[in-house]
Amino acid sequence: MDSAIPKHLRCPRTRDPRASENYRPPNPAFCARLDPTVKHVVMAFHGAQYRKAEGREAAQQGLAELRRAAQACAQPPQDDLAFTVDEAGYETLVWASYWTDPQAYAQWEQTVAGWWDSDERLPGPVGWFREIASPGAERFETLFSTPDRPEGAARLAASMSGEIREHGYWGSMRDRLPASQTDALRAGAAPVVPAVGKRVRMGGFENLALIRSGQDWSDTQGEERQLYLQTIEPRLCEGMDYLRDQGAAIGCLGNRYLVQVDADLKPLERSYGLSWWRDLERMERWSESHPTHIEIFGAFMRMVQRLEFRLALRLYHEVSVLRAEDQRFEYLNCHPATGLLRASSCG
Amino acid sequence: MDSAIPKHLRCPRTRDPRASENYRPPNPAFCARLDPTVKHVVMAFHGAQYRKAEGREAAQQGLAELRRAAQACAQPPQDDLAFTVDEAGYETLVWASYWTDPQAYAQWEQTVAGWWDSDERLPGPVGWFREIASPGAERFETLFSTPDRPEGAARLAASMSGEIREHGYWGSMRDRLPASQTDALRAGAAPVVPAVGKRVRMGGFENLALIRSGQDWSDTQGEERQLYLQTIEPRLCEGMDYLRDQGAAIGCLGNRYLVQVDADLKPLERSYGLSWWRDLERMERWSESHPTHIEIFGAFMRMVQRLEFRLALRLYHEVSVLRAEDQRFEYLNCHPATGLLRASSCG
Repeated sequence: MDSAIPKHLRCPRTRDPRASENYRPPNPAFCARLDPTVKHVVMAFHGAQYRKAEGREAAQQGLAELRRAAQACAQPPQDDLAFTVDEAGYETLVWASYWTDPQAYAQWEQTVAGWWDSDERLPGPVGWFREIASPGAERFETLFSTPDRPEGAARLAASMSGEIREHGYWGSMRDRLPASQTDALRAGAAPVVPAVGKRVRMGGFENLALIRSGQDWSDTQGEERQLYLQTIEPRLCEGMDYLRDQGAAIGCLGNRYLVQVDADLKPLERSYGLSWWRDLERMERWSESHPTHIEIFGAFMRMVQRLEFRLALRLYHEVSVLRAEDQRFEYLNCHPATGLLRASSCG
Repeated sequence: MDSAIPKHLRCPRTRDPRASENYRPPNPAFCARLDPTVKHVVMAFHGAQYRKAEGREAAQQGLAELRRAAQACAQPPQDDLAFTVDEAGYETLVWASYWTDPQAYAQWEQTVAGWWDSDERLPGPVGWFREIASPGAERFETLFSTPDRPEGAARLAASMSGEIREHGYWGSMRDRLPASQTDALRAGAAPVVPAVGKRVRMGGFENLALIRSGQDWSDTQGEERQLYLQTIEPRLCEGMDYLRDQGAAIGCLGNRYLVQVDADLKPLERSYGLSWWRDLERMERWSESHPTHIEIFGAFMRMVQRLEFRLALRLYHEVSVLRAEDQRFEYLNCHPATGLLRASSCG
């Protein structure tokens, strides 16, 4: 059995994992192995929000510009595009790009600095944002139900692991994070949340936890497809809506449930939740005890049972626990509850 | 907020609790406070198994004899009587008695030594057993949904705690055990499981985990009563049947789901599951990930939500992690899968 913590990041523990070495998970799971030379992953979520068709076109165009600029640079990123409607009813397009060389990212950012710094986007039908997270490799983990279709940062990985031990129990997410060997990863200082305005920049929250949790049902058929679409997905939506609309009270700084789309905005059969949490503990407590997540988990377990563990549905997630200096948020012409801006009301 | 670990059993930790001091549970819960002078609790489960009406009478009589003998001794125990049908289809009566003075228990056991040692019970329609557990106070914890109706060992407690912090998350059971401050409580040596016979005595399993998990629905009415009886209880039964019939594969050494009865064997509106596990970790893994328990948990959470946390249903449990020398098992004229005798086939 493999450990989720790669060899080069193992160290003498001062904190025990929740499961012993004797534990054997009930089903296989895998994690992405970044090259040991990778010290930081950059995840840049660039977004555009709008209400009207005219906005949609401008949003699509603006993100396409950024995307082209990124593809032209030295380390072209892995990326994808996704769509959601936010808590205020705004349609939102999010372009997620991943980089394993922070310098390459910084260089690219320089090339689009004028785009962001210009005030010409402040009026107009579109709000723009960027939410940048750059976890150290020791503060990042992934989990995949199959080893053959990486998503997100894992598409930049050198390889996939063998079957790992640290999954199938509550707390395994923490146990997969190399930093958890010696660090409780508790919430530290929060930034001053700036006043609402046409341009808002915000710094990071010490030990903020970020999860991208995704599903790909493109290969499902028959009963499995029906079970996913009729029993799992509706519950997933409810849970995501809860986090989006009421999550602040339990420490969720922001939540989007997105459907991936192609360049023409045609929906694909892939979706992901993107949730920012005040810290890992608050995310753990929600996932393991909140009725909305228990329902998702229960529905999924029933499906797995019924299909005797033979699933064409693919699940994955990537989790980061971030240093304050490894986060940056910027909102141009956005409504005041966009993304992390709601953090001021967060429990 | 109170801690489940009583002051006199707190010590410098070498192992961290799963939840931080900042964690606040979503609903109140309480634990029994034993007098600090209590070093060990004795829990003695005396049982009688039979198939026919003639056996029932002999079983009832025998347990009544033992019960009378116990009531006559210096420290009369707290006790109760319960009924179940075991995996082999035998009706089983279990008399549970609790003592906080191991010497008082030992003295009483002396007075009934002749009863047990005699071979006159070896033939006949009834099988007899005793399963004795005597956890140190630092290896014992309780949890109650209300502070006003103790059950089991808690009826010998000096008081109930205030609202405790260590509940409402997976792993809180372990965090409530004082010994977990410094000990992983992993499975140690197992006894030689003796050959089947008319009289079988067996020693203990290092760090065996024992749970009595009970529910009292006598005060429920209307919708709550209906929800309990129609949605919770059937799932609870399924989970208990699974552990009884198939639990050996996942480390459950024995399981009984019992309905409490009065002296005339009339059922009361109280029940409990009594499960013996190879160690605490195996019990944790089942409770938090096995579909049968997820169903129980999910059904309960839905009910709690629906009734907005106003429940007349009372729940409690008591958990011990036992040293090998603090356990003793004896089976007279019992079938070979009775109680802990199935341990030889246990995963």
